[in-house]
Amino acid sequence: VPFSQQTEGLTYETLIRRASSLVTDSTNTFLSQTTLALVDSIAEYIKAMHTLMALQQRYMTSVGKLNPAEEDSVWQVIIHQREQVKDRRDEYKRLESNWMNAIHLSELAAEAAYNAGADHASVTAQTNLQVAQAQVEQVRLQLLETEKKMAETKAEEMQRMAQFASRNVEEEEEDIPEAYLRED
Amino acid sequence: VPFSQQTEGLTYETLIRRASSLVTDSTNTFLSQTTLALVDSIAEYIKAMHTLMALQQRYMTSVGKLNPAEEDSVWQVIIHQREQVKDRRDEYKRLESNWMNAIHLSELAAEAAYNAGADHASVTAQTNLQVAQAQVEQVRLQLLETEKKMAETKAEEMQRMAQFASRNVEEEEEDIPEAYLRED
Repeated sequence: VPFSQQTEGLTYETLIRRASSLVTDSTNTFLSQTTLALVDSIAEYIKAMHTLMALQQRYMTSVGKLNPAEEDSVWQVIIHQREQVKDRRDEYKRLESNWMNAIHLSELAAEAAYNAGADHASVTAQTNLQVAQAQVEQVRLQLLETEKKMAETKAEEMQRMAQFASRNVEEEEEDIPEAYLRED
Repeated sequence: VPFSQQTEGLTYETLIRRASSLVTDSTNTFLSQTTLALVDSIAEYIKAMHTLMALQQRYMTSVGKLNPAEEDSVWQVIIHQREQVKDRRDEYKRLESNWMNAIHLSELAAEAAYNAGADHASVTAQTNLQVAQAQVEQVRLQLLETEKKMAETKAEEMQRMAQFASRNVEEEEEDIPEAYLRED
């Protein structure tokens, strides 16, 4: 009887250990998919902001030199790009929340694997966690830099528009397109 | 370009949704393995307590009617069964901690699956959670009942031993085996 009890005990432990390894396998996959998606979405968001800044700067240098039709078409493009930036940002935020879920799941799975005696699975999960966090950290730094540039561009732009507006008021009271000045 | 972007977006979502379903699949397995193990270990613990109570009650009815050698062999059996109860309790506590991990993982996996748009996987995980919790709840009630009986038996036994001891002091100052009175 003691022998059969021990076998039964071992079987429980083995089954639980294996099941906990299955969990870390799947949380590893979930984490790598969400990390890939998040990193790509941040890159897309950064790209969209750079495009917007380039368009805004080109517009700033040509302000006052365009006829109303040209002006109108230029800021249609800018408005469109602003929407792109907003969409990219929304997607990045949505994927970030999936990524956070994956991080928490991986942490818990690593802990559960350790408690179930699946040491190797636990270590692998922890390594994957560190890699994923480092990858996201790297693009987040680029993101912060770009957002800083965007804020600077905005401040510069506001200053120039104000100068241009005051010059215009003195000269001929030409309107600045309202939609362009819209805050977002 | 917008069409290809949309395809890329769908692919991210699809990959994340599928990966999150893999997670709920594995947490379902982990939960059912740990639930099975926990329920069985509680049943074993209850059985061990019932055996101990039966042994103790048999000893109580024969107290004073046994010669020292018989008495010694009876309480050797009781001591052994007490160790069995302790071992069963340790195993149940260890498996309970694995089960708690599985519960938390399943809750988080269900939430992550819901956020990733894997509604069906999320509902399945929640259903499994409820079933697992109900199964454990049921044996826990039996466990509480048995522990209550154990406490009652202990109190009754203490009372009888005290009566027996005071009778003995009056009659012939026979010793009660010390190991039997040991608290645990």
